[in-house]
Amino acid sequence: MAYVLAVVTQFSGGQKEIHIKARGRAISKAVDVAEIVRKKFVQDAKIDSINIDTEEISAENEKINVSTIEILLKK
Amino acid sequence: MAYVLAVVTQFSGGQKEIHIKARGRAISKAVDVAEIVRKKFVQDAKIDSINIDTEEISAENEKINVSTIEILLKK
Repeated sequence: MAYVLAVVTQFSGGQKEIHIKARGRAISKAVDVAEIVRKKFVQDAKIDSINIDTEEISAENEKINVSTIEILLKK
Repeated sequence: MAYVLAVVTQFSGGQKEIHIKARGRAISKAVDVAEIVRKKFVQDAKIDSINIDTEEISAENEKINVSTIEILLKK
């Protein structure tokens, strides 16, 4: 809920566009945040675009690939 | 990897479009499947669209909201 509040606060502050980014297992939470914001709190916010990609991160001397998501919400 | 194989098999069988759907925590896995398929196995597959939504499901006499994702891969 902390991220939902952060997004709602930014929209209330006059922001017209908010990018929600996440990677790995947090991706499903990013989708939850976007959905809760637009369905419950900021009903005139629309999903403008959703992009997914892969990022290479270093973890304990090896490189692993992690999926990322970027959701753009617009008022 | 089972889902990656399923998608790759369908593309090899001549399918031009594949929908990957998931809900809840499986959403991040759906993104992984799409990314692994297009980056490692079927490099001419492109992400045509990504849609997210909310579904109401019944669980032990109460209704809960679950986020969903649908990724359309096209060759």
